[in-house]
Amino acid sequence: MVAEVVPSPPATADPEDPAITLHRAGKIEMRSTVGLRGPEDLSLAYTPGVARAAAAITDDPQRVHELTWRSNTVAVVTDGSAVLGLGDVGPDAALPVMEGKALLFKNFGAVDAVPICLDCRDVDDLVDTIARLAPSFGGINLEDIASPRCFDVERKLQERVSIPVFHDDQHGTAVATAAALTNALRVTDRKVGDVRVVVSGAGAAGVAVTRMLQSMGVGDVVVLDRQGAIHRKRGKLSGVKRELADSTNRDRITGDAAEALRGADVLIGVSGGTIPPAAVEAMAPNSIVFALANPEPEVHPEVAGRHAAVVATGSSDFPNQINNVLAFPGIFRGALDVRAGRVTDRMKLAASTALADLVGDDLRPDHIIPGAFDDRVAPAVADAVAEAAVTDGVARAALPE
Amino acid sequence: MVAEVVPSPPATADPEDPAITLHRAGKIEMRSTVGLRGPEDLSLAYTPGVARAAAAITDDPQRVHELTWRSNTVAVVTDGSAVLGLGDVGPDAALPVMEGKALLFKNFGAVDAVPICLDCRDVDDLVDTIARLAPSFGGINLEDIASPRCFDVERKLQERVSIPVFHDDQHGTAVATAAALTNALRVTDRKVGDVRVVVSGAGAAGVAVTRMLQSMGVGDVVVLDRQGAIHRKRGKLSGVKRELADSTNRDRITGDAAEALRGADVLIGVSGGTIPPAAVEAMAPNSIVFALANPEPEVHPEVAGRHAAVVATGSSDFPNQINNVLAFPGIFRGALDVRAGRVTDRMKLAASTALADLVGDDLRPDHIIPGAFDDRVAPAVADAVAEAAVTDGVARAALPE
Repeated sequence: MVAEVVPSPPATADPEDPAITLHRAGKIEMRSTVGLRGPEDLSLAYTPGVARAAAAITDDPQRVHELTWRSNTVAVVTDGSAVLGLGDVGPDAALPVMEGKALLFKNFGAVDAVPICLDCRDVDDLVDTIARLAPSFGGINLEDIASPRCFDVERKLQERVSIPVFHDDQHGTAVATAAALTNALRVTDRKVGDVRVVVSGAGAAGVAVTRMLQSMGVGDVVVLDRQGAIHRKRGKLSGVKRELADSTNRDRITGDAAEALRGADVLIGVSGGTIPPAAVEAMAPNSIVFALANPEPEVHPEVAGRHAAVVATGSSDFPNQINNVLAFPGIFRGALDVRAGRVTDRMKLAASTALADLVGDDLRPDHIIPGAFDDRVAPAVADAVAEAAVTDGVARAALPE
Repeated sequence: MVAEVVPSPPATADPEDPAITLHRAGKIEMRSTVGLRGPEDLSLAYTPGVARAAAAITDDPQRVHELTWRSNTVAVVTDGSAVLGLGDVGPDAALPVMEGKALLFKNFGAVDAVPICLDCRDVDDLVDTIARLAPSFGGINLEDIASPRCFDVERKLQERVSIPVFHDDQHGTAVATAAALTNALRVTDRKVGDVRVVVSGAGAAGVAVTRMLQSMGVGDVVVLDRQGAIHRKRGKLSGVKRELADSTNRDRITGDAAEALRGADVLIGVSGGTIPPAAVEAMAPNSIVFALANPEPEVHPEVAGRHAAVVATGSSDFPNQINNVLAFPGIFRGALDVRAGRVTDRMKLAASTALADLVGDDLRPDHIIPGAFDDRVAPAVADAVAEAAVTDGVARAALPE
């Protein structure tokens, strides 16, 4: 065996950032799951034995699902155009983030995940490229692809392939947020059909959160972009913003965050901007504030907490961390377990409900969602998602025992 | 943690082929190389720590090589058009073979390898697709792509990307074959410039073997395709066969295998056809026969052994197994270790020499090449390849200590 090359950290005056140290040589590796001790193993795992496995698939194409790693494997795919709080950093700088995602998939969901960073920006080129990769994988997790291209990439790609295509920045955020909201409404004694929610941000997360809230029956949603409230009378809206203008903001609120938030029950910040404390103060009594922008929440949770009854952020430094890791591992685990062809709205709602229900009797204003390391999460989400896939008729394998 | 799904074999009357049993659920998995025990680990491996790793790469793009897994990782890429002895089986059936290759890369070369099976056949589409994937990997191993498309794919792709692109069916075969031939010439007291070699097969392996023999200074090479000897007067030759017609077959031999082999010193079979025993008998005295077609050699080694002094095959059932696993793991290990931008002819020759030299004083007619499980092989090949890369000026990192 060749000794693995382990680079040593350079000698420097300042102590190295532990995150940089941890990232040396990357965070993931491939491993064999079968023994390779000698020529006999080789003759089974490679030629001539592997030819018999290939021939078995030629004879019965369904056997690819049992005879390869693919049915447990997703590609984590980005073009590096919208990476965390850094923005358009390109495929190279995006790679540590995709490796991190792969690590989370495996640790939380027992899903094998391969980071794929593409040097490609055009929507149709992205769709063609990822569609051509599809025989290698059981699912595609799109990540950090800028809005609004991400909507078209996801939609067009799902039309081309028969494995689930899921943009986590959209739907993972939406599922975790919806679960937290369900419990926040419970703990503040609200009915979902009565509430007005302001969503700050009309990018991938904002659009998906809004759509999910609508599917949950939220009373009214007002979406803010950089120009303020999206409403029917705004000019020059197209694509998703046009759809939002037509389907949200029942009372035709115009103006900025402060105007939209006056008397609102819920603020969901997924924008990366800031919300003035005074605007939070002017919300309804016992308001609910989710300030989810990373690394800087739109309003500091301690500030929000002076006015709101329930506060959540994306950070583990505060209670009520709304983290996509609560959603995507279990969602893919469930989808892969029943070989779902896509992730449907029912599957997402089921995930959200399962997540919310795990809190059970521990529900308190500062505990509206399970912790990221609660090991009941991924199995519960997976089970709910698998059942929903079967109900929706998109499952192609039986529920596991 | 979610329990992994382990499918059980179906109850059947016949005992299952152990190769099929071994292939259940595939042969590889992804693993984390860093701990993820709690929120603190998560904050280093994922947000916010991973953002600092991404930012470090944005500030200094060279840092991608130290801060990700990429510099140790190759993609094993196929379109499924020329898989082992099965032919055009497509990307699904090719996947177990690519997984097997990945397994060999890791076990023999400590190289992480990801199987990529593409639903794509057009040369330019393949080149575009793989070029777009390139930021994810440190090298590309092309596999089982049919001739003659494979030559154009490799050449055009190498022009587009700055990581090594290496079609193992061509060059791995050529390197291992050249090493074995070097020793076979030694043990039969021949000078390389004096010998006439007949190469049976003008596909990927045959073309690459021929080119390598020419770079070693072999006296004369005659290449056979299905129509017989390739020579200057044959009509309708284009592409690689045109090049072969112009650069081989000094004596303008025409006709079939029997005519070409009369008095020849060496037969290298990489064709998948058969060579009549009488043709082997008519070769020069103390001939050298490499019958490398899998799973059926062109002539049975025991039959060849009645006439030839040195016999090799691709099978571990006989002495002198010429197996690409002697070549590709060490070649990529060496190339990755010095971040070579490509695999040059010098690097391939160096690999071949290192492989041949490992036999040392153990050289005998039935031992002209090391065994696949000789653990000196990959390190020796890697060292030689890395040095050659530095000499050729294609290395972008220093030789490891």
